[in-house]
Amino acid sequence: MVSDINNRIAALKGELAELEAQLPPPVSPLAPAAFPDLPVIDGVRFATAAAGVKYNNRTDVMLAEICEGAAMAGVFTRSTTRSAPVLRCEEALAAHSEAPDAAGKFAILVNSGNANAFTGGRGFESVDTLRAGVAAALGCPADKVFTSSTGVIGEPLPHSRIETALGGLVAALDAGQSRSAAEAIMTTDTFPKGAKAALELDGVPVNIAGFAKGSGMIAPDMATMLVYIFTDAKITQSVLQQILWLENASSFNCITVDGDTSTSDTLLLAATGRTDMLVIDDFADPRARAFRAALQGVMRDLAQQVARDGEGASKLIEVRVSGANSSGAAHRIAMSIANSPLVKTAVAGEDPNWGRVVMAVGKAGERADRDRLTIWFGEILVAENGWVAPSYTEAAGAAYMQQSEIVISVDIGLDNGKATVWSCDLTHQYITINADYRS
Amino acid sequence: MVSDINNRIAALKGELAELEAQLPPPVSPLAPAAFPDLPVIDGVRFATAAAGVKYNNRTDVMLAEICEGAAMAGVFTRSTTRSAPVLRCEEALAAHSEAPDAAGKFAILVNSGNANAFTGGRGFESVDTLRAGVAAALGCPADKVFTSSTGVIGEPLPHSRIETALGGLVAALDAGQSRSAAEAIMTTDTFPKGAKAALELDGVPVNIAGFAKGSGMIAPDMATMLVYIFTDAKITQSVLQQILWLENASSFNCITVDGDTSTSDTLLLAATGRTDMLVIDDFADPRARAFRAALQGVMRDLAQQVARDGEGASKLIEVRVSGANSSGAAHRIAMSIANSPLVKTAVAGEDPNWGRVVMAVGKAGERADRDRLTIWFGEILVAENGWVAPSYTEAAGAAYMQQSEIVISVDIGLDNGKATVWSCDLTHQYITINADYRS
Repeated sequence: MVSDINNRIAALKGELAELEAQLPPPVSPLAPAAFPDLPVIDGVRFATAAAGVKYNNRTDVMLAEICEGAAMAGVFTRSTTRSAPVLRCEEALAAHSEAPDAAGKFAILVNSGNANAFTGGRGFESVDTLRAGVAAALGCPADKVFTSSTGVIGEPLPHSRIETALGGLVAALDAGQSRSAAEAIMTTDTFPKGAKAALELDGVPVNIAGFAKGSGMIAPDMATMLVYIFTDAKITQSVLQQILWLENASSFNCITVDGDTSTSDTLLLAATGRTDMLVIDDFADPRARAFRAALQGVMRDLAQQVARDGEGASKLIEVRVSGANSSGAAHRIAMSIANSPLVKTAVAGEDPNWGRVVMAVGKAGERADRDRLTIWFGEILVAENGWVAPSYTEAAGAAYMQQSEIVISVDIGLDNGKATVWSCDLTHQYITINADYRS
Repeated sequence: MVSDINNRIAALKGELAELEAQLPPPVSPLAPAAFPDLPVIDGVRFATAAAGVKYNNRTDVMLAEICEGAAMAGVFTRSTTRSAPVLRCEEALAAHSEAPDAAGKFAILVNSGNANAFTGGRGFESVDTLRAGVAAALGCPADKVFTSSTGVIGEPLPHSRIETALGGLVAALDAGQSRSAAEAIMTTDTFPKGAKAALELDGVPVNIAGFAKGSGMIAPDMATMLVYIFTDAKITQSVLQQILWLENASSFNCITVDGDTSTSDTLLLAATGRTDMLVIDDFADPRARAFRAALQGVMRDLAQQVARDGEGASKLIEVRVSGANSSGAAHRIAMSIANSPLVKTAVAGEDPNWGRVVMAVGKAGERADRDRLTIWFGEILVAENGWVAPSYTEAAGAAYMQQSEIVISVDIGLDNGKATVWSCDLTHQYITINADYRS
């Protein structure tokens, strides 16, 4: 009997695998309805090419040209095994911050399909060859060329294929190509991710446009997070860097897909200064606050899109923690919840299993008192005073969990520390993507 | 076309789910061939009952009686949201260590099916009622009764069902019932876990026998780790506690299934002293070293069985880290690898994806130098000097990954810190178990 059933199960699974292989890769159910109509940023042009780094029949290289006089800011992965491109970007950023007015345009060159990480000395050779190639083709200093690579770790980057494409890329540069740029950098992403903002600073219109790839912040080897944001605002490099650093803390540093940190995470922000505004050269300038608010909107939007496209995601999870000892403690508790495989599988199964939230608070290593915790699913009070709330019903919790966006709120009841982070559920599809990825 | 395929896929999945529901729960492919023939420990008797706490048609309560004059040691979860039974065990242990010679027998009462965690004041009432019930039925002090509960969080423990069973349990106490004791405490475990050791101390034979449940150390809400070990050795409470603490660090603290820490993890060690040996009352006694070695064998065996029965496990992963800055750093790097969803899914997919090991070293937050890392899969040198080893072939790596026990070794190349930890792979079955568990 059992062996008959097992034989039938094996046959069904075989047929399923064949059928699923015939389907186009599914787009995340959490994807926005459409890619936004990104504004042209004066001073920035894009081009893409299909260089065949690894994929066939799709673009896999993106070149962005940024005008002379721009300011560049960047934030990179803190991994101790970060890739050659990241290390070179850090050098380029340091050189730029020391001499922000040095002559020459900037460039950003990104390839998908290969991370050029853990590739020894050859990794640096690839980066240096490409930087020199871009500098020659574009007429800019090599030390103003930033490169990113995303894809498999440990395989040499076939950089000559990208070199061959550089001439065509430079010839094709066009200010309106931000969507195709967002598409060329995708790996396991199921949709391109863009966001924008428009504001006025002293009556001068300013635009911000950016795009990103996931599918994790803290991310798989083929799902490094790369983010490129452009604005025509006029801001000095040091203020721009300070702003980017701060806004990163409440956006990209607040998302997690699987708790794994990429060797290659890169976030670059370019300000071309091609507006008539007076330069913002002081972080205390009130216009800096207005710019930060608009930038925060773009960064949070992109960060949430990355979580929405987390590998296998079927639900977006927002975790809000309040009442912790400090904002750092709140962040760590929120991340403990957002990274917990048991919380994430419960959300996938639409199970209002708040006991797992209690567990994740308990393991976070921060001060918490069981009897002061309050937990809500959305607006539903679930637990308080060390136990399930008298008003809570399993039916209400289960109905809430059927939504595609789940908000889990926890008040620790100790002090004023607050944090919000975003994650996604953990589904069979995550296993399918990552257990079969490279082979 | 696509909709036809999707319809057929939905139909196949429906049929699969129906068939799988007909099968008995699968036993982990990593289970030992048989439950060991555990020795009787003089001074310890067991009984089990089917009290219907949550499950039907199986035992779910275990009572152990331990003779007067025994020494008890314990280690508990460090979760800040630990359960009422754990808090009471800590109190009982503190009282025992202050008055190790207080009169009266000890008892351990364990139920499966309900964790009695996050149940407010009612949780303590349940524990206190059960401790009083055991004390009355067994004729022992209530403060020498240790209880554990494992199962769902946040639901009141129906303790009266267990109370009703106490009389029968006491009447059924029998020294030979360790296997049924191991079975009664199981939750999502797929096999009962036992281990033993025999040694001689100054010519006197001494036995150790223990059992455990998983399915995680660091564990799901229904897979709290509970471990009970018994020996007839004669050891003072303070030395026994010191030994247990130390051996825990290199056994149960070195396994992980999913990085989630239970509210209820409990490890108790009882030494009845029913041998003719002279008491060990000094940690420096050479016999303490011999006892520790035997106990370590039992604890590592049980710990590895817990990892072997990790939810959905199809492969056992041993991670050995050497050359780190300290043993603590080595442990944290090893845990970063062992907990990485990407490493665990790669193992599940039999993919020798060593790039993910590099990633997990990089995210551990400990000192590491990309160019000094050396990585082996089993005996196969995979990567060194910052890149794949010249001798490595993907075919050799892929062949190795088909084994059911995978050893990943990493030398950090900095200093002498070493650690070994055990984990299991992350499979579809983990998602199935945890996404559907409570409903």
